Amino acid sequence: MRKVVLFTASSLDGFIATKSGGIDWLFTDADYGYKRFFNSIDTTLTGYKTYKKALSFSEFVFPGKANYVFSRKKRRPDPNVTFVSRNVPAFVRTLKKEKSGKNIWLVGGGSINSVMLNAGLIDEMIISYHPIILGGGIPLFTDKSRESEFTLVRQKLYPSGLVQIRYKK
Amino acid sequence: MRKVVLFTASSLDGFIATKSGGIDWLFTDADYGYKRFFNSIDTTLTGYKTYKKALSFSEFVFPGKANYVFSRKKRRPDPNVTFVSRNVPAFVRTLKKEKSGKNIWLVGGGSINSVMLNAGLIDEMIISYHPIILGGGIPLFTDKSRESEFTLVRQKLYPSGLVQIRYKK
Repeated sequence: MRKVVLFTASSLDGFIATKSGGIDWLFTDADYGYKRFFNSIDTTLTGYKTYKKALSFSEFVFPGKANYVFSRKKRRPDPNVTFVSRNVPAFVRTLKKEKSGKNIWLVGGGSINSVMLNAGLIDEMIISYHPIILGGGIPLFTDKSRESEFTLVRQKLYPSGLVQIRYKK
Repeated sequence: MRKVVLFTASSLDGFIATKSGGIDWLFTDADYGYKRFFNSIDTTLTGYKTYKKALSFSEFVFPGKANYVFSRKKRRPDPNVTFVSRNVPAFVRTLKKEKSGKNIWLVGGGSINSVMLNAGLIDEMIISYHPIILGGGIPLFTDKSRESEFTLVRQKLYPSGLVQIRYKK
């Protein structure tokens, strides 16, 4: 079965962006395994706020993938994505079972991450810890998450000080 | 000059304890460098809540050290510790300069960590990331912290899945 993989950056204190969504603290000097990961997936799952953030870049950031954006409200159509307002866990379970294909990237943010975590649907997490304390911002998981243990698969240290850790359920 | 070192455990999402202060998720199957670290310091700095938590253990956890507990209020005397209600950064600066000795352990919790961080007084951090998402609790640093970059010194992976990372200012 296809795996759902949360691939994300985090500060040392567990934030994926500043309060205003700022991500200018992310390292961009190297690829950090992004291209390889991007080739291993054919589907993305994104919360609406993270999708809006992605739209602020000059090019669409998930080309050639099946992109699902979760939003309770009706949104302006976008040919690059499919909006999903239904029950997220049920939708993802169906996606995992019915469609053959590559893995599924859980892009984030914190709200969708927690919904997926609580439903036991995160198979793997690849977290790139940046050597910075943000002291607040958009959390990796919201406070609606339940305590969940993972198993470390491997970790990689980059010269910049970034530590990338891979966990499985 | 003596260094102030934050030596602490954290969940993957940046919490040092559950909402109620629970730490039963901490690995206790191995030493994880604790004894060696404990021998490298002769002074501890602790916030009042963390001190109260430490009192719940059967034995005093910082024997043979100069232990300073920060609290704005007057507290019941304890022969093991010295309560400090003065300006924390000024007190620690004096401590670093005037007293020769080993390093100083910043025990935590989140509030004192942030006061120290904002004052630029954390020289090193040794964070033991446990492979667990808590989804909430007592944060590594409070939301009163300012954005602060660190430099990775080294990291160590333990068979249990714990990743211990050392950073310097």
